[in-house]
Amino acid sequence: MQFHKIDQDDVTFFKSILEEKYVRVDEENLYRCASDETEDLRYLPEIVLQPGTTEDVSSVMKYCNEHDIPVTARGAGTGLSGGALPIYGGVALDMKRFNKILNIDKRNFQVTTEPGVITQELQEHLKSEGLFYPPDPASKGSCFIGGNVSENSGGPRAVKYGVVKDYVLNLEIVLADGAVIWTGANVLKNATGYNLTQLIVGSEGTLGIITKIVLRLIPAVKHDLLLLVPFRSAVDACAAVNTIFLAGFTPSALEFMERDALEWSMRYVKSTGINLPDDIAAHLLIEVDGNHIDELYRDAEAISEIVQQYDIGEVLFADSHEQKEMLWTLRRKVGEAVKSNSVYKEEDTVVPRAELPELLQVIKKLGREYGFQSVCYGHAGDGNLHVNIVKGAMSDEDWNTKLPEGIRKLFVEVVRMGGTLSGEHGIGLVQKGYMDIAFNDVQMNLMRQIKHVFDPKGILNPGKITPGP
Amino acid sequence: MQFHKIDQDDVTFFKSILEEKYVRVDEENLYRCASDETEDLRYLPEIVLQPGTTEDVSSVMKYCNEHDIPVTARGAGTGLSGGALPIYGGVALDMKRFNKILNIDKRNFQVTTEPGVITQELQEHLKSEGLFYPPDPASKGSCFIGGNVSENSGGPRAVKYGVVKDYVLNLEIVLADGAVIWTGANVLKNATGYNLTQLIVGSEGTLGIITKIVLRLIPAVKHDLLLLVPFRSAVDACAAVNTIFLAGFTPSALEFMERDALEWSMRYVKSTGINLPDDIAAHLLIEVDGNHIDELYRDAEAISEIVQQYDIGEVLFADSHEQKEMLWTLRRKVGEAVKSNSVYKEEDTVVPRAELPELLQVIKKLGREYGFQSVCYGHAGDGNLHVNIVKGAMSDEDWNTKLPEGIRKLFVEVVRMGGTLSGEHGIGLVQKGYMDIAFNDVQMNLMRQIKHVFDPKGILNPGKITPGP
Repeated sequence: MQFHKIDQDDVTFFKSILEEKYVRVDEENLYRCASDETEDLRYLPEIVLQPGTTEDVSSVMKYCNEHDIPVTARGAGTGLSGGALPIYGGVALDMKRFNKILNIDKRNFQVTTEPGVITQELQEHLKSEGLFYPPDPASKGSCFIGGNVSENSGGPRAVKYGVVKDYVLNLEIVLADGAVIWTGANVLKNATGYNLTQLIVGSEGTLGIITKIVLRLIPAVKHDLLLLVPFRSAVDACAAVNTIFLAGFTPSALEFMERDALEWSMRYVKSTGINLPDDIAAHLLIEVDGNHIDELYRDAEAISEIVQQYDIGEVLFADSHEQKEMLWTLRRKVGEAVKSNSVYKEEDTVVPRAELPELLQVIKKLGREYGFQSVCYGHAGDGNLHVNIVKGAMSDEDWNTKLPEGIRKLFVEVVRMGGTLSGEHGIGLVQKGYMDIAFNDVQMNLMRQIKHVFDPKGILNPGKITPGP
Repeated sequence: MQFHKIDQDDVTFFKSILEEKYVRVDEENLYRCASDETEDLRYLPEIVLQPGTTEDVSSVMKYCNEHDIPVTARGAGTGLSGGALPIYGGVALDMKRFNKILNIDKRNFQVTTEPGVITQELQEHLKSEGLFYPPDPASKGSCFIGGNVSENSGGPRAVKYGVVKDYVLNLEIVLADGAVIWTGANVLKNATGYNLTQLIVGSEGTLGIITKIVLRLIPAVKHDLLLLVPFRSAVDACAAVNTIFLAGFTPSALEFMERDALEWSMRYVKSTGINLPDDIAAHLLIEVDGNHIDELYRDAEAISEIVQQYDIGEVLFADSHEQKEMLWTLRRKVGEAVKSNSVYKEEDTVVPRAELPELLQVIKKLGREYGFQSVCYGHAGDGNLHVNIVKGAMSDEDWNTKLPEGIRKLFVEVVRMGGTLSGEHGIGLVQKGYMDIAFNDVQMNLMRQIKHVFDPKGILNPGKITPGP
């Protein structure tokens, strides 16, 4: 694809539809929109546009479609697969002005929001109305709800409450040619034509620009309890995950952290709140929630009985707000902590839950074989393990040539176990080279042709998800 | 589209790939596959093929694609929108031999099944293993799980547990040209490319033939209680639905039945189990479920307190197996009962839950205006109301010309309230004429083009979902 390079005429046009202050070509804005939280990648856009309304987006898209200018939508830039990187330059469509919660429909347990609202702010606003929107990615304090929809994000609570896709009822999107449509209806059940809504969720800005989001909500849950269980064997910790489910419990979070993950996070946030004996190899962080506190204590007791069959240390019960907050902060900061320690790559493996122990062993075995060190943590209850590969003492050459072979081997094993390439981070730029492991040509061609239906000229976030041009 | 009429050469070919006894041109089979449970419609296929393996289906599709022969997949024929009717003749692809549950993966709470398994048999088999697959359409005793996936069916338990789409993890499908693919992976979280799985769910056999289904399961729930609440005003009953949710309760079923629905069902199944005073206009059937029976009694008590604010009769508590079974049978047989009473049409309206009272009033108002009688019942907790329009004394002319105007007006109102054309029955043949009410040309063209990606020659269940040829 040959894209048109933005020239003065284009800038003049953009200034005719957006106020001048929302048409940015200054270095600060270009550099801000050149990267996200994915490794240290940087791709400069040619211009940053900051539309404020659906009509603005429509005018921009119509023009860019006519003039072959690539458009990459951008939320808060917290993505972990490079989905928001404008790798062909063109327009970075900065959605930060779409920051309004438009309508909280308490009667119907629904909210209509713009995509540029910070997820945690949306959640807290809803909570104050007695409503609960569960998906809570680790970056919830800074990420946008629109980015969450685009990547089909998850987070710790997905294990009980599902991921973003399970809450999206309807989307307003702007198509590549500027046309504006709703993808569905604001109803809980829908058997009316093809499910365009679910096609857009997780499509990473390659099929349309999301301008409004209707989410279903549930009643706020009254209580929760948190357990931190230390294991002397990390494989045991992985095995315990399934044991808990097989006993009939569905925790509201079930997180795994290798020792390094927790240790680095404690150092990073300067916490001394947790005793970490030398013989502990991993932890499970287990939350139960519900409306009857006595029942939660009963469930927490039962779960801590169940894990006694493994070689564990002393279980920490957290029932005060401060203790729970401390533990969740440690868990949420693992990613940043690991990344602050070294050059790194993060893989977002996901397998059927019972295969977790095997997955962990495969990761470590490949590490020995290909010479990489990994720190693993993540949403074990979903079978979703983040593998942070730290460069440490690895040579640049090994990092650039040998490591990719090891990662490829890892995904081959993941797919063999019934898993796939990404549980919640998306494919974006950095994972698309592995798509051939999960999909054959027939599947890839279906995806390419669907992309072509929505975006015949290929201007929407080009170079993402599907390999090749 | 000009389709090829099946000739002796085609029959010879089909007999070369399927045993002779699975290539049917006898009247009995042709007539069996000519209709489903939708009104009294009948469209004869030219041939009935009964493949037994994915390879069989692939060979049939490849041949039909090359020879422009339409193929309409058929499950148990319980559909309510004419989705399985071979309106252009051609092949009726009878999936009844796909009747094996292939693998129950208890460790991962998953089942892999063929599409021709009866839903209730699948559920009971899973229950005996301590596993729970919630979606339970009224026809569960005879419908196939493959048809449920194709129509994105619901049922009473959807209100708490979600519909079929919420349980489908992965599908093996045969494309129009005979290619075989899996649509996803057997994982709980997936952010890997476009969601082909959810595109197939509810696509009514127009995008591919489903040959294997992977469902996620949940642990079996131990207890349930059932309440039947009689209301003196049907609009009150609709209003009470939302009052229960606003009080923080999520019943595992919340069904509405107008008086006629229950009365006709009692007559149909010859039941005398329920006292039906003259002043009762409608009932709510409310189920709560969970693992702690004492908590369920508490919830049931609380809900029966809540509904006291309306003008109600005596609440019936059902906690014996026999009583519960009797009530559920009455509810499930409403559809058949109403239909056995008169020529009828059934509409599958769905609105945001809080709009139910308005929906009911609109239905009755339109009935007076267009001269039709309606019996309403359905999954009120989801905002999903089935409207059975009975012909009764209506003249043939009014039935054929005036009524469709009334139904169109009804759907215009439904869409105005934020609802859509079908909650769980699908669009199929009989609702496609109303698609323009819910979708504009841009949306319809996206759907048509997606169809074209999967089925360029338009041989898969032609004439369904999208209006026009």
